[in-house]
Amino acid sequence: MVIEPPKSQYIQIADELRARIQGGTYPADAPLPSEQRPADELGVSRVTINKAITLLRASGDVKVRRGAGTYVRKLPKIPRDAKRRYAARALGTGAGEVEVRTLKLQSRTQYREIGRVNPPSAVARALGLSEGEETLVRRRVLFANDEPTQIADSYYPWSITEGCDALLQADAGRGGSYSRSAELGHGPVRFTEDVNVRVPDDAEQRLLDIEATLPVFDIWHVAYDAQNRPVEVCVHVMPGHLWTLHYDWDDETAEEETD
Amino acid sequence: MVIEPPKSQYIQIADELRARIQGGTYPADAPLPSEQRPADELGVSRVTINKAITLLRASGDVKVRRGAGTYVRKLPKIPRDAKRRYAARALGTGAGEVEVRTLKLQSRTQYREIGRVNPPSAVARALGLSEGEETLVRRRVLFANDEPTQIADSYYPWSITEGCDALLQADAGRGGSYSRSAELGHGPVRFTEDVNVRVPDDAEQRLLDIEATLPVFDIWHVAYDAQNRPVEVCVHVMPGHLWTLHYDWDDETAEEETD
Repeated sequence: MVIEPPKSQYIQIADELRARIQGGTYPADAPLPSEQRPADELGVSRVTINKAITLLRASGDVKVRRGAGTYVRKLPKIPRDAKRRYAARALGTGAGEVEVRTLKLQSRTQYREIGRVNPPSAVARALGLSEGEETLVRRRVLFANDEPTQIADSYYPWSITEGCDALLQADAGRGGSYSRSAELGHGPVRFTEDVNVRVPDDAEQRLLDIEATLPVFDIWHVAYDAQNRPVEVCVHVMPGHLWTLHYDWDDETAEEETD
Repeated sequence: MVIEPPKSQYIQIADELRARIQGGTYPADAPLPSEQRPADELGVSRVTINKAITLLRASGDVKVRRGAGTYVRKLPKIPRDAKRRYAARALGTGAGEVEVRTLKLQSRTQYREIGRVNPPSAVARALGLSEGEETLVRRRVLFANDEPTQIADSYYPWSITEGCDALLQADAGRGGSYSRSAELGHGPVRFTEDVNVRVPDDAEQRLLDIEATLPVFDIWHVAYDAQNRPVEVCVHVMPGHLWTLHYDWDDETAEEETD
């Protein structure tokens, strides 16, 4: 039997405040009550409430709006089902907005750049490009109810996408960019994702409107065509507190074992 | 074309120090030089070096050891390939130590608890248990070169595992606990993982020997048998800076598209 030491009081209070947020006592997008009120209700000092709120900031449950006070988070946790999101294009929807629409939130994509560029060296490596080979880049920020939910920068080998005008438009047409890749003879048949977590840099803090201490998921998504050639790298940077990543797979060794 | 504002000086310095760590100029597990030396070499103030080092602490690249100063991280980033790690048991290795051994690091598992318990309610839900149903729990901390790399708490429905003595031992035998589940007629054939990121709680900070500000991956791994019954939940808590998660899958819609 593991005996855990008792939780510090401010951690218990943070748990209680979090439960009130999840239960709707403190509704989404509304200001948090002054420290005095929960201090009175819970019979603890304002200092303890303050320490608990610092924890809630670190976990993304509340957010300080400059000059306006502390607000409850606006968005629920968004489930991101890797397999299903990329399968969605078969239904005519780009992968980018699937989850947000499922939650009946208002989805919006803001393109920052679409064009022909020299890719960062790590992208060139992931795409297996030769020295000096260029890429088509599509850089965007996605929003749910006007809150930024992710930065997504997609790179395609220019040699594949050259001449495809749709990929140079913000709206890449029915099924999104992967459907265009398929028409070019390089439709993705396999995906890989490498997931890291880190603190956001200056630009990411600004684009995602988050504090320096809020960790982000950093996902490198690579799409491969039937010849096993990498045809797209998409770098996703997503506030960690907004997302749950979901993966599922069949066990390839299962048959051997049950024989 | 996106014009990014120039990076703050201390961020550039942090990038440079990180490059020195990755390049081996500042070797793993060795003390970082005093602030004065890099300040002189890079022609910046000690204040700037200090701010840069704060960033390196937040990213887990260096660690303050109480009373001993600031040290370079001990371990390299560990790749965790979800499919391959669980397939490894076919070769006689438990999933737990696969990655660490691949990197030729010293692997060690410390069991905290093995026994029959009432599971937390979220675990009971994930296993589809009725009110009051018990579980077999196996709680452990894994180490690489004596540095904690993860907490892993596995829960199995007691009704399935009852009578299997091997599962009550630290060493569950060849192929690990999943091979025992297979012998009980509930071998896993499908897995799901839900990945969250958050700051560690007090107990996790202590067990993983990390600061409160270092984010952790919180992975709920669920194994299903051929009847689609959940037969294990394993909750992994892993320092985010130590791990890269890797997933890959075939695209189920690819055939429809290329037809």
